[in-house]
This record gives sequence, structure tokens and C-alpha cells, in this order.
Amino acid sequence: MSSKPSAKEATAAVQSAVMADPTERIFNFNAGPAVLPQPVLEEARRNLLSLPGVGMSVLEISHRSKTFEEILAATEADLRALLNLPENYQVLFLGGGASLQFSMVPMNLRPADSSADYIVSGHWAERAVKEAKKLGKVNIAATSEAQKFTRVPRQVELKLDPRAAYVHYTSNNTIYGTEWQAEPQVGNVPLVCDASSDILSRALDVGKYALLYAGAQKNVGAAGVTLIILRDDLLARVPAGLPAMLDYKLQAEKKSLYNTPPVFAIYLVGLVLKWMRKIGGLAEVERRNRAQADLLYHAIDSSGGYYRGTAAKDSRSRMNLTFRLPSEELEAKFVKEATAQGLAGLKGHRSVGGLRASLYNAFPLEGVQALVAFMKAFQQKNG
Amino acid sequence: MSSKPSAKEATAAVQSAVMADPTERIFNFNAGPAVLPQPVLEEARRNLLSLPGVGMSVLEISHRSKTFEEILAATEADLRALLNLPENYQVLFLGGGASLQFSMVPMNLRPADSSADYIVSGHWAERAVKEAKKLGKVNIAATSEAQKFTRVPRQVELKLDPRAAYVHYTSNNTIYGTEWQAEPQVGNVPLVCDASSDILSRALDVGKYALLYAGAQKNVGAAGVTLIILRDDLLARVPAGLPAMLDYKLQAEKKSLYNTPPVFAIYLVGLVLKWMRKIGGLAEVERRNRAQADLLYHAIDSSGGYYRGTAAKDSRSRMNLTFRLPSEELEAKFVKEATAQGLAGLKGHRSVGGLRASLYNAFPLEGVQALVAFMKAFQQKNG
Repeated sequence: MSSKPSAKEATAAVQSAVMADPTERIFNFNAGPAVLPQPVLEEARRNLLSLPGVGMSVLEISHRSKTFEEILAATEADLRALLNLPENYQVLFLGGGASLQFSMVPMNLRPADSSADYIVSGHWAERAVKEAKKLGKVNIAATSEAQKFTRVPRQVELKLDPRAAYVHYTSNNTIYGTEWQAEPQVGNVPLVCDASSDILSRALDVGKYALLYAGAQKNVGAAGVTLIILRDDLLARVPAGLPAMLDYKLQAEKKSLYNTPPVFAIYLVGLVLKWMRKIGGLAEVERRNRAQADLLYHAIDSSGGYYRGTAAKDSRSRMNLTFRLPSEELEAKFVKEATAQGLAGLKGHRSVGGLRASLYNAFPLEGVQALVAFMKAFQQKNG
Repeated sequence: MSSKPSAKEATAAVQSAVMADPTERIFNFNAGPAVLPQPVLEEARRNLLSLPGVGMSVLEISHRSKTFEEILAATEADLRALLNLPENYQVLFLGGGASLQFSMVPMNLRPADSSADYIVSGHWAERAVKEAKKLGKVNIAATSEAQKFTRVPRQVELKLDPRAAYVHYTSNNTIYGTEWQAEPQVGNVPLVCDASSDILSRALDVGKYALLYAGAQKNVGAAGVTLIILRDDLLARVPAGLPAMLDYKLQAEKKSLYNTPPVFAIYLVGLVLKWMRKIGGLAEVERRNRAQADLLYHAIDSSGGYYRGTAAKDSRSRMNLTFRLPSEELEAKFVKEATAQGLAGLKGHRSVGGLRASLYNAFPLEGVQALVAFMKAFQQKNG
């Protein structure tokens, strides 16, 4: 995994990938929606006019059909297998995005007289807090805002309320390039996690969580469906009278089929999960992600300070790798030239600037190698 | 449009369509998700690995990219052109399904001290009432429940409250095969319509409506996105403090981009709208739908009572055509044999039984001809 092609070799590889492939695919470093595994796209394309033996596209099948029942069941089964999911966890596939979960979590899990703990590690955590505050009491258990979110809060900094309805945290912070290396310790209070940008990127002990949610569009599919994994006993908390679509208990009872779910988006998650199992499950996914992140962080750290990682080393994300160049002018030049060479989506989030390479599950090693080679060549020319 | 092939010819046509087409597509009479135009599926398939000149699949592009901005803008522009949409109307593309609108409409448009009028014409209208009641006051302005929803309520039956925040109705009733032939007259009270099963199936004077909403999966796309068309002035009613994802005002300000929208589902709506404009706009869509519905209703009405339409003639839907056979045994036999001949999805909703042929915008004439021929042959053999 440490073989590093020369800048020239890698650039040639990118060019040939761009030119030779009739589908003209480039390397997509976007933070989400993001790159999907090519075998998944190919299978979806093969069946787009008609699923074998069905005579209809998956875009056209009834959500009450046997075909979709089987797709949904297989998708859930593959998720359970990958995560080794305990039987007392439910899996939901809902529309509306992870942002809708910012409201659904407190609506469903925080009784009217209770407060919930929120750990703030970046923009999306702040949005979760904002929505939770609209509906009831919030305790900010910790925030790394004073560190400009260059690291996640430390265990010793957490001011947890032992009577909190739950503790909410964001496992990976897409904008700031930080990630929790291990779950916060929260005692017996239920742990709720927005895992939108690192779900299924490594092995996970789900038993530590009460609820995990994640938009599919980074690591497990395309935009349009959100995965929710929640422990059975939480459903007893769901108050009566919630809007049906926002009611975890009803959605769990109806197995995500209270209304028409996002059929195609679920189908695509199914294909991605199948691909993940095929390549070796979460152990292999984790190994690949770690190797790719190491490769790029090594390039940053060995550049003699030309490239500077923005996240504290003990909070570095394997999913979103953020770094700066000596000047904003050079950053703009870098993005422009990289894009021209088929390395797309490297511009950092507008709120923080700099560069960001998002290396989700489906990102190919060749793309990291090409980026590293490009970085070396760029530094040589502009150092 | 009145040319009717013989049973033998049509059956042969179906068989050859099933056999000769390498994509093995059959006729899909499902009530939704439903059939899509074949040129739309073909374009989506062609670009599934890479949009021309982009190097990424539409399943992978950033919702903040120029590419998606253009897709979203073109989709909205085509919708505006097709509906001749007045400038003071906003268009939103949201996730969560039309069922989420059952809650969002009263949350956003019914002040705390007000009541809203609901006209009940079937199952989905009842669900809208159920959600609206959870959040405030509802007046049932009329219901055709006593008629077992075999027709929609009549204008003279409406007990409208002139101070109502709005009047809600369901323009087409998928399960019961009924449809409003014209909008209810509601004076100056804003008219809100769940148009999920007949949106864009005919020309429409949007100026009569304050808000229209529709899941895309019947007439305009696949499951996963809901269209909302609403008049600007309604946004002044939206109360402060709503959950962001449920706030029409915020979603309108952010042009459906507050969070990651269902990118692929919106792209597909864009392709369908482009197809609709290409074939001649809503006038041609309406002509086709009317001709196809007439063809099937004629077959029902001229069967000497063997086939019996279940909807009152003045409430008949052009989208969902419901009918019965002399016995449930024959109905089961009909469904089984039709399915075997590539006429799929004809079983009526489980709550009412019988048969249902859904003929949405993309349903091909050949499929109706094949069904009519099959019906004649079936009656000859089982009459």
C-alpha cells in the first residue's frame, strides 16, 4: 500500500483513465454526494430498463411488490451482517435526509421534561443543536468551537448530565476534517450518533449506541435515503401523536413502508452493501480506508511544511482530509490545475477554505496515488 | 385512437414486446411507483456511469455543483413552462413523500387559532385529515364515505367555513378510481391540493390553487421526491420555530438546497418533464390520457355488464380505472392470466378488491390496446 508512483506515472494514469474509459470517469473527491463503487454503477446501469425476470425498472416497481420486498429484506440483512447487528436493533430507511433526524431524534427520544446532552464538534453538530433547541432543553456537554473545531472535544472536557435523555455527537466532521477515534464514554445514558460521514467505514460495536443515523450519500449510496439503526427499547419513549412520518415507532412497525419509500435509493444502498460484503466486509473496508488516508497524510506531513494538515493529529479524519498551502493564491491554482487533470472536488468548504480530499469507502486507491503524485509535482513547480 | 386490434393481434403484440425487446419490459399497470417513459430510462441509463463532460454519475455529483444547479434550474424551468406557472409561485423539491406534506401543510399554513377545511374523497384524504387533526382544528367540509368513495363529493355538499385557513382536497383517488373533473369552488379561501396521482396529467389553471403537492412516482418520476408548488403570499403565514426541514419558508429561501436534496430523483423528474415538453406539452399529455382512458372505459361499458366500473361515471378517473368481474374467482383468474401475458399490476387495492388499471402519463397506448384485447378474449372464454 506504500508503493507510490512518480508524479509523471500517476498523472499519466489519470489521463489514461480519463481518456481510455468510454464512460470518462474522473476522480471524485467531493465531500458528498460522493463517488460510488464502479461495479455498483455498472449493475444499476445494466438493470435500469428492466430488472432480470421482472420486466420493469427498479425505478418503476411497486414498493408493495415481492421484488421490492426482497430488495429491502436483502439490504437490511446485508447491513445486519456487516455490522454484526444485535437482534434488538431496528433498521429504518427514511427519506428527508439526516437533517430531518436532527428534529426526529429529540421529538421521539427526549421526554417533555427532560434535557438532552449535545457534544459540539462542528457545523453539523451545531445544526443538530439548533433543531433540538426548537423543541426542548439542550445541554451543551462540550464544544471545540474555541479550537475552531480543529479537534473533537476530549473525554475529560465532557460535562455530561447523568439524567440526560441521551447524548448526541457527530462522529466525523466533514468540513473540519476531524473524526472521533473512539466513541465518547457516556455511562448509562443512551448514545446517539450522526454517523453520516463515516458510517460503515470501519468496524463498529453497535452495542455502544442507542441510535445511529446517516445520510447514504457519502459511504453507502446516493442522496435520497437515510439509514437509522436504533435499539428496540427506545421505541417505548416515542410519545403519542407525532406526525406519522416522523414517528420512529410507526416507521419501525411498518418496516419503512408506511408510505412509498425512496425505492431506487434503497436499491442502491443494497448494491453498495453487497459490494462491501464481497470485497471482505468492514475489516477490508477499514483497511483500505486507513491505507488511503495514511498515504495522503504522509504526503502532507513529509512535504516540509508546504502542505499543512488543518486538523489536530489526534482528531484526524480518515474520510475528509483537509490541508492548506502556503497561500490562498496557491490553493486556487492547485484546485484549478488538479481539476484539469481529472482530480475533482478538492476545494475546501467555503466556510473554512483550503483543500479537502474526501476518501469515502468507494474512493479508489489510484485516485489517492494520483493526488499524491500531483501534490509532489505541484510543490516542485510552485515551492 | 379508436383503432382496436383483435385479441389475437394484441396478445401477439404483448408477447413480441416481451420476447423481442432485449430489456424484456412488460406493461406495468401499477398504481405507483409506476411506468416511466422509455426514452427517459434510456437517457438515464446512458449517463449512469458518467454525465457527458462531467466524468461522474448524477448519483455522485455534489448538490452544490454547477452541474446540479443546472439540472435543478432546468427542471424548475420546464415545470414552469408546462404549467404556465405564474411568477408568484414557488417550486420546491423535497424528500419524505407526499405523506410528509399531510403534516407540513397544517404546520405551515394553519395558524394556531384557526381551523382548516378538508374534503374527504378516499383513503389518502383520510390520512391527510388524520395528520392535520394531530396538530390543530379540522372541519370536514364533505365526505363521500357513505357512498363508499365511489364518487367525489359534489359542490352542493360542501359545508365550507369562509374563515378556514385553507381547503384541502385530493384531486384523484388512486384506490377508488375517482377524480375531480374540476376544482371545488372555495371562494377566497386558499385551495390546497394533494395532486399526487394526477399532477401534470392535464392542463391546469394553477392560479386557482394556493398550494399543490405531489409525490413524483406516478406521473413525473420515481419515488423519492415530492413536488410542492405554492403561492408566495402563503409564506408569510409560516410560523417561526418550525423544524428546518419542515419549514416551507426556509426551503423556499434555500431553493430546496437547505440540505442535500434527492439529487437523482430530481434529475429523473427533469428528464420526464423534458420528455413531456418534447411530445407536445400538457395538451398532448391530456389528449393521450383521455384517449387511453376512453378506450378502456368503452371496453368496460360495452361488455354487457361482464366488466363493471366501480366509480360513478361523473367521477371516473383517467389515471386509475377500477372495475369488477362477475366473481372474485374470475377476478383472481383474470389477474393471474393477464400477468402471465405481460400485463402486470392489475390487482385492485387490497382494501377494495377487484381490478385496477393505472394509466399514468408514461403508460403506452399499446398496453391499453393489449389489455382491452385480453379482456375481450377473457370474456369469450369465461363469459
